[in-house]
Amino acid sequence: MNLVIFGGTIITMGRMGIIRDGAVVVEGDTIIDVGRSDDIKHKYPRYEGIYAGGKIVMPGLINTHQHAAMSLLRGYADDYPLREWLESWVWPFERHMTGYDIYVGALLTAVESVMGGTTTVNTMYHYMEDYNEAAAFAEVGLRGVIGHVCFSWRKDHDRRALVDLAGRWHGKADGTIRVSIDPHAPYTVDPEYMRELRAITLELNEKYASKGGPIIWHTHLAETEDEAQKIKGSFGVNVENGVVDYMDSLGVLGGDVVAAHCVHLTGRDIEALKTRNVKVAHSPISNLKLASGVSPLPELLRAGITVALGTDSPCSNNSADMFEVMKFTALLHKGVSRSPTLLPAEQVLRMATIDGAKALSWDNEIGSIEPGKKADLAILNFKKPHLRPLYSEISHLVYAVKASDVETVIINGRIIMENKEIKTVKAEEVMEKAEKAKEKLLDRLHSH
Amino acid sequence: MNLVIFGGTIITMGRMGIIRDGAVVVEGDTIIDVGRSDDIKHKYPRYEGIYAGGKIVMPGLINTHQHAAMSLLRGYADDYPLREWLESWVWPFERHMTGYDIYVGALLTAVESVMGGTTTVNTMYHYMEDYNEAAAFAEVGLRGVIGHVCFSWRKDHDRRALVDLAGRWHGKADGTIRVSIDPHAPYTVDPEYMRELRAITLELNEKYASKGGPIIWHTHLAETEDEAQKIKGSFGVNVENGVVDYMDSLGVLGGDVVAAHCVHLTGRDIEALKTRNVKVAHSPISNLKLASGVSPLPELLRAGITVALGTDSPCSNNSADMFEVMKFTALLHKGVSRSPTLLPAEQVLRMATIDGAKALSWDNEIGSIEPGKKADLAILNFKKPHLRPLYSEISHLVYAVKASDVETVIINGRIIMENKEIKTVKAEEVMEKAEKAKEKLLDRLHSH
Repeated sequence: MNLVIFGGTIITMGRMGIIRDGAVVVEGDTIIDVGRSDDIKHKYPRYEGIYAGGKIVMPGLINTHQHAAMSLLRGYADDYPLREWLESWVWPFERHMTGYDIYVGALLTAVESVMGGTTTVNTMYHYMEDYNEAAAFAEVGLRGVIGHVCFSWRKDHDRRALVDLAGRWHGKADGTIRVSIDPHAPYTVDPEYMRELRAITLELNEKYASKGGPIIWHTHLAETEDEAQKIKGSFGVNVENGVVDYMDSLGVLGGDVVAAHCVHLTGRDIEALKTRNVKVAHSPISNLKLASGVSPLPELLRAGITVALGTDSPCSNNSADMFEVMKFTALLHKGVSRSPTLLPAEQVLRMATIDGAKALSWDNEIGSIEPGKKADLAILNFKKPHLRPLYSEISHLVYAVKASDVETVIINGRIIMENKEIKTVKAEEVMEKAEKAKEKLLDRLHSH
Repeated sequence: MNLVIFGGTIITMGRMGIIRDGAVVVEGDTIIDVGRSDDIKHKYPRYEGIYAGGKIVMPGLINTHQHAAMSLLRGYADDYPLREWLESWVWPFERHMTGYDIYVGALLTAVESVMGGTTTVNTMYHYMEDYNEAAAFAEVGLRGVIGHVCFSWRKDHDRRALVDLAGRWHGKADGTIRVSIDPHAPYTVDPEYMRELRAITLELNEKYASKGGPIIWHTHLAETEDEAQKIKGSFGVNVENGVVDYMDSLGVLGGDVVAAHCVHLTGRDIEALKTRNVKVAHSPISNLKLASGVSPLPELLRAGITVALGTDSPCSNNSADMFEVMKFTALLHKGVSRSPTLLPAEQVLRMATIDGAKALSWDNEIGSIEPGKKADLAILNFKKPHLRPLYSEISHLVYAVKASDVETVIINGRIIMENKEIKTVKAEEVMEKAEKAKEKLLDRLHSH
C-alpha cells in the first residue's frame, strides 16, 4: 500500500529531528520520503492519505527483552521470594504449557505490544514446531526476533529446534520475522555448550544471513548477584572478575549479543561489554519487581555501551508497555543516583527506538523515520487532558504519554492498528483464547 | 440519584473483601447496601441500574499530595538540577500565574484525575478569592481538600487567605470540598509562624469543623537532604535530630498532619511520626524525578505509620495517574531493598484507597465500599488484552491496570464520568483553556 501520513508532528529520531506539520511517505513496506507536508505532499497525489493533524508520528518502539508467551502467567504469582516464585509457581506452570499455549500467549503479547506502539519485539522462549511465537507474531503482523532458549540439559532438543526455527522462520513474513540463538544464562549453559552455540550461530548465519539479515544472540546476563556462585556450582568454574568477563573468556561475546539486565557488573564486566560491543537490554521494571537490584545504567552509558530497553515478561512486569519502561528508566536512575540531569527524556526515547534497533542489529531498516527504512510507525493522539498543555513532545513521550494514547500503528508498511482497532486479528478472540488456555492449564496443573 | 451497580466484581477494601457478581446500592450521595447481586438487587427495583458484568468496581483512588494548578507547567522544564529547575524555570513562571490560571490548571488536573479513577485530591497551592482550585474541583465534581500554602514572607496575606478559604469553601459543594492549612515546609515557615498556624487551625476548626469535618494540615517534610541546613540558614535554629523531630519540638504535629515525602528521616523522626500519628503522603515518582532520593517506606510501615500515596505536581511527575504511583511504589521498594515480598499488591492498593482516606482524616466517609460511606466509585473495564488472563484482580489493579481502563466514575453519588465521557464539564474546552492560558503565560513571561 502507498501512504502519505501528513499534517502531524514527526519525531524522526534521525537526522531530520522533529518536523512540525510534517509528512511521511510510504511505498510498499518502505519509507520513501520525509519532510514538511507543504513540501512533499503534492508529489504523491494518488497515495492514500492519513491526516495526522494535532497528532504525533514516531518510530514504533522496540522492545529488546521479552518472553512473549508468558502473558498466560500475568498476575499468576507476584510478591514472592525469587526462588519460591520460580520453583513453586512459574516452572510447575510452564511444564504444562503446550505449543498452542505458547502461541496464544504470544498472540496476546503481540496485540498488547501493538496497542502500545511497540512495533518490534525481541522474544526468548521455547520454540516448538507446530505452534510458536513466530507464527503468532506473523499473524498479528508484529516485527520480531524470535529466539529459542537453550539449556545444557537439553542440548539435542535445542540443536534441532535452532535449525528448524532458522529454516522455517528467518526472514519470513515479508522479512519481519528474524530468529535468534538464546543461551538462557551463563549458569544454565555450560562453557562447552556456550562455544558450540557460537559455532551453530556461525553456521546458521552462513546459510541464512544473506536472506534474512543477521541471526543474533539473546541471553540473560548478570541479572542477580549470585550468578558467579551459580556458575561455580553448576560447572565448577571460578568466576573471579564478573560474569561478563567470564563470558568474554569463552570467546562468545560480540556486537550481535543482546544481554538482558546487566545489573551486577564489575569494572571488568563493563570493559568487556564495551570492548565486545555487546548490547544491553535494560529492563528496570522486572529488575525492581524481582528485587534483582538497579543496573548501573549511567556508568554503562558513560562507557559508550549501547543500551536499549525491554519490558521483560508479562509475569515479571506485568505489562508489555514500553512507554512505562521509558518513564521508569528516566526516573529510577535520577532518584537512585540523586542526579536529576541523568537520563534526560531524549536519551531515553533514543534507547526505546534507534538504540533498540542497534541492539537487534537491525538499525539499517528500523528505529527511525528516514527514507529507505522500513515503515514502522506509531501515531499518537496528544489531545488528551493528561497531555495538555504541550511544551515539548519529547518530554511528554517519556514522562506523560500512556500506551493508550497510541491510535494507529504501521509495521512494514501495513496498517496493523487503525484508530485503536487491530486489523489483522480479532483482539476479542485473542483474549478469549488466552483466558481458555489459562483455564485448561490450571486444570492440567491441579490434576497432577 | 438512586443507583444499583450490579454484576461486577466489587473490590470493597473494607470488611466485605472482594464480592464477585456483586452489587453496590447508592441513595443520593451515600452507599446504602453492598452484597451479592442475587441477594440485594431485587430489593431496589426502581433504582437506576448500571450493569458492570465483567467489570471491576472499586473505591475511587485518593491522591494525598498534589499541586493541581501546576498542570500548566507539565513538561515545561524537566531534567534540570533542582535549584535551576526552581529558580530559573518554575518560580519565574509561577510569578506570572493569575487566579484564572490557577483555576484552569486545577480544572485540567481535576479532569485528568477523574479520568484515571481518582475521586479525591489533596492539593496545596496559592488560594485566591476570585478564581481558585476549589472552584475548579467543585465544577468538575471532584472531591478535594484545598489548601492555601503559607510562607513566612507573606504572613498577612496568608492569614486573610486562610480565613477566606475556610469561610467560603469548607464543607461546600455538598460536602465534597474541605480546606486545609498548608505550611509550605519547615525551612520556609519560621517556628513562631508554624505555631501561629497551629493556633489558626484550632480557631478555624472551632468555627467550621462541625459543618464540614476537620480542617487538616498539608505540608512538605523531609523531602531533600539539606532541610536541616536550610532551617539553620533561614531561622538560625539548630536541627540536630531530624526535621520531623524539630517540627515535633514546636508542638505542631498531630494526627491531622499530612506530611508529603518524608524521604530523609532519622530514627527520632520516625518515632515522632509514629507518636504523633502523622500521616505520610509517599510520592515516589516525584522523589525520583527531582532526585530527592528514596523514602524508607518499609521502615515507616513497620513502625505502623499510616502511609498514603500522592502523585505530587504535574510538573514533577508529569501525570496525575494514581495507578502509575501504585506500580512505582510496589516495585521501587522491592528493587531498592532487594526484597520481592515488600509492598505486596494489596498493601499498596490500601495505601491508595482506605489509607488515603485515613491520611485526610476522612475515612468515616470515603476510602472503601461500605454501607454508610459516600459513593466514590470507579468502574474499570478488564476486557483488555493487557489485563488478560485474569488470576487476581488485586494484582492487576497494581501491576497491570492503566488509568485509561477506568470507564465510569461516581463521586458523592454523582456520575462524573460515564463510559469515558466527563459529564460535568467539556473536556475539550478545558484542554483549550489550558493551552490558551499557557500561551498567555509565556507571552507575559517573555515580555518581562
